[in-house]
Amino acid sequence: MTGTDSERLDRTRQSLQEAGLDALICRLPENVVMLTGYWPMNGFAFLVFPVAGEPVLIAPVPEDTLALESWVQDVRLFPWGVVDSGDPFDGIGQLLRQATSDLGIKGQQVGYEGSFEFVAAPYVAGEPSVFSERTLSLIREACGDALVDATGLIHKLRLRKTQGEVERLRIVNDIARMGLQAFFENVVPSRREIEVAAAVESRIMTGGTGYESVKVARAWASVMSGPDAARAYKPHLLSTQRRLEPGDMALLELVVVADGWWADLTRTRVAGTARSQDRERWQVVVEAQQAACAAIRPGVPSNQVDKAARDVIQKHGLGDYFIHHTGHGLGLRYHEPEPLLHPAVATPLEAGMVTSVEPGIYVDGWGGMRCEDDVLVTEDGIEILSEFSRELEGQPDGNMARRNMSANR
Amino acid sequence: MTGTDSERLDRTRQSLQEAGLDALICRLPENVVMLTGYWPMNGFAFLVFPVAGEPVLIAPVPEDTLALESWVQDVRLFPWGVVDSGDPFDGIGQLLRQATSDLGIKGQQVGYEGSFEFVAAPYVAGEPSVFSERTLSLIREACGDALVDATGLIHKLRLRKTQGEVERLRIVNDIARMGLQAFFENVVPSRREIEVAAAVESRIMTGGTGYESVKVARAWASVMSGPDAARAYKPHLLSTQRRLEPGDMALLELVVVADGWWADLTRTRVAGTARSQDRERWQVVVEAQQAACAAIRPGVPSNQVDKAARDVIQKHGLGDYFIHHTGHGLGLRYHEPEPLLHPAVATPLEAGMVTSVEPGIYVDGWGGMRCEDDVLVTEDGIEILSEFSRELEGQPDGNMARRNMSANR
Repeated sequence: MTGTDSERLDRTRQSLQEAGLDALICRLPENVVMLTGYWPMNGFAFLVFPVAGEPVLIAPVPEDTLALESWVQDVRLFPWGVVDSGDPFDGIGQLLRQATSDLGIKGQQVGYEGSFEFVAAPYVAGEPSVFSERTLSLIREACGDALVDATGLIHKLRLRKTQGEVERLRIVNDIARMGLQAFFENVVPSRREIEVAAAVESRIMTGGTGYESVKVARAWASVMSGPDAARAYKPHLLSTQRRLEPGDMALLELVVVADGWWADLTRTRVAGTARSQDRERWQVVVEAQQAACAAIRPGVPSNQVDKAARDVIQKHGLGDYFIHHTGHGLGLRYHEPEPLLHPAVATPLEAGMVTSVEPGIYVDGWGGMRCEDDVLVTEDGIEILSEFSRELEGQPDGNMARRNMSANR
Repeated sequence: MTGTDSERLDRTRQSLQEAGLDALICRLPENVVMLTGYWPMNGFAFLVFPVAGEPVLIAPVPEDTLALESWVQDVRLFPWGVVDSGDPFDGIGQLLRQATSDLGIKGQQVGYEGSFEFVAAPYVAGEPSVFSERTLSLIREACGDALVDATGLIHKLRLRKTQGEVERLRIVNDIARMGLQAFFENVVPSRREIEVAAAVESRIMTGGTGYESVKVARAWASVMSGPDAARAYKPHLLSTQRRLEPGDMALLELVVVADGWWADLTRTRVAGTARSQDRERWQVVVEAQQAACAAIRPGVPSNQVDKAARDVIQKHGLGDYFIHHTGHGLGLRYHEPEPLLHPAVATPLEAGMVTSVEPGIYVDGWGGMRCEDDVLVTEDGIEILSEFSRELEGQPDGNMARRNMSANR
């Protein structure tokens, strides 16, 4: 377990205070891990975080060891999942009421996670536990009616990463690069899309588990190839039994989580030797990514970064095929709402923000290519957290670029 | 895409009518797939299902082909994810208001998914889209205030599977057995827990994708081994870099999804040759599972099935180590609330229900073992959807028992 992130806790108390809130109650794993260092495996733990006083962490007995390793001193456990556990919500409700009473926040202004329409998966990703009206009524019983939907406040809080959080993101990106290496090795003629995807996920599980003390490393890899890969942007993330033909492009969309921290990367590779048009278009995509990265520094409006990428692609007459925005925030989730590198968003970037930078072009009947990295905004520029080979073809030696070789300027 | 499940649609209309509801609005993938045959990949689609009239499916443009293959005639699309999409909630809100107006259900009693505290992951499992207050306010704007939390009604509806749904569950269990076969092959001395888990998941992705026209097959495998596998029940689902020693037990907890339908299986295997105590205890577990299966038929109270398993384990003096209930419902999710094969639940079983049957014993410092299958309650007994070898050791030839070899009586 990592040491207490005091910067994060101080900033959170300050934000709550500024918003006139006396406490925050979280139960989504993405927010619990931010404020406790503990990533609830089933996503079924609650944190009462007061502006004044010590937080109370309410966790299920089966996760006791994990919860006790957290930054929180006051851990209270509810029974779950054994034959005499009863309804876990009874235990949670009782502990919530006790905690708000102990902390003196009954009847006060309390923030909650009302409007997370997308959430980060917990480790038990097949069955996330989420915020429903059942959660809300338990919180209401414990706090009274002066509840405030703190979704916007929480997302703002998450926007600038602390030093400790940047370190977690470096680690998950290290692990994600293991997957990129597997991708490079597996994009060969006659390999199937789904086989490539499975190889990437497998490499991340086996290489990432235990790396830098990571407990859980998991990936979701989507590999789309050939002319239909134009459908690789949203139209479809489905990997199929299609075999790669010599010269086919294959696009990897890769999501990785390590103990609650996320990476989102894309590479495009050719099975065998690339066609000259593909090679030329790929150079445009990589150049667009470099232009966007070069434009990033604190104070720069988000849309100026988008424009830097878009201008390169337009200059080569491919503007119509770059159909999406240039990047989005991430960290505690695969996508965070800000920053958004989009033509319509003028919000200036700040040091500590993390964004994907992912120009791509998609042409029906030809295919799709995208190059995506995760980038930290530093005081004077960027650090590419996911630095890795961008070669479209050739030896699959991605060479696992160390993060200190990144584009710090 | 499978043919329209008229039995499901008729039953749903009838349930709504009996509950005095005029319509149901769903946006959780588990309920959308039940009523449309379409499994929303991002989990970001809405269904307006009226008692009278044709349903309206509101789906994101990127999933147009999937939505158009559904059972719903009236599919309406909202833009999402490209540079000029705008806020998708604007599009959704507009289409919801239009749909409720077209269907004449404005101001009427409309059910919604208010209290799903656990949800099934969509294909994009790293970032599920869920029901938040944002969803609720869109529904309210479209329907008025006569909203009814239909969570209980929906779970009741899901309790008895239709013939079409049983077929989907046979398919996901076929795929899950591919994973069991990989597990049997990989539990060998010196293999690591995480390597075994990765091999199981990989086999399911590569073997399940395209099997019986399945678009998406994914798995989450947890492998716990050795003396610490006592922690395999809830205490922990974590697979580590631990290498299997000769004689070690390894327990696989396996969750599989195929196009929105779920399986939940467990096997225990020994790397090499089993110790005689382990062999004896395993016989007790398997015997307990058989006793539970033999007790299942329509009309039998759930706790009688639990008792059948528990009696066997108690008879052998191991009762204290069987710490959990004997089984739980499943199908549209990894766990459904009913049936629950638990000492305190006397609800009678009905034909069409599907339950896990999963006795296990866990002893600190010794390890854990569990045997879990998915079982359909038939008119006169059961069909074991996941029939597969229960050998603790020996040749890894699970022999992929055909489902028609199952325990129909």
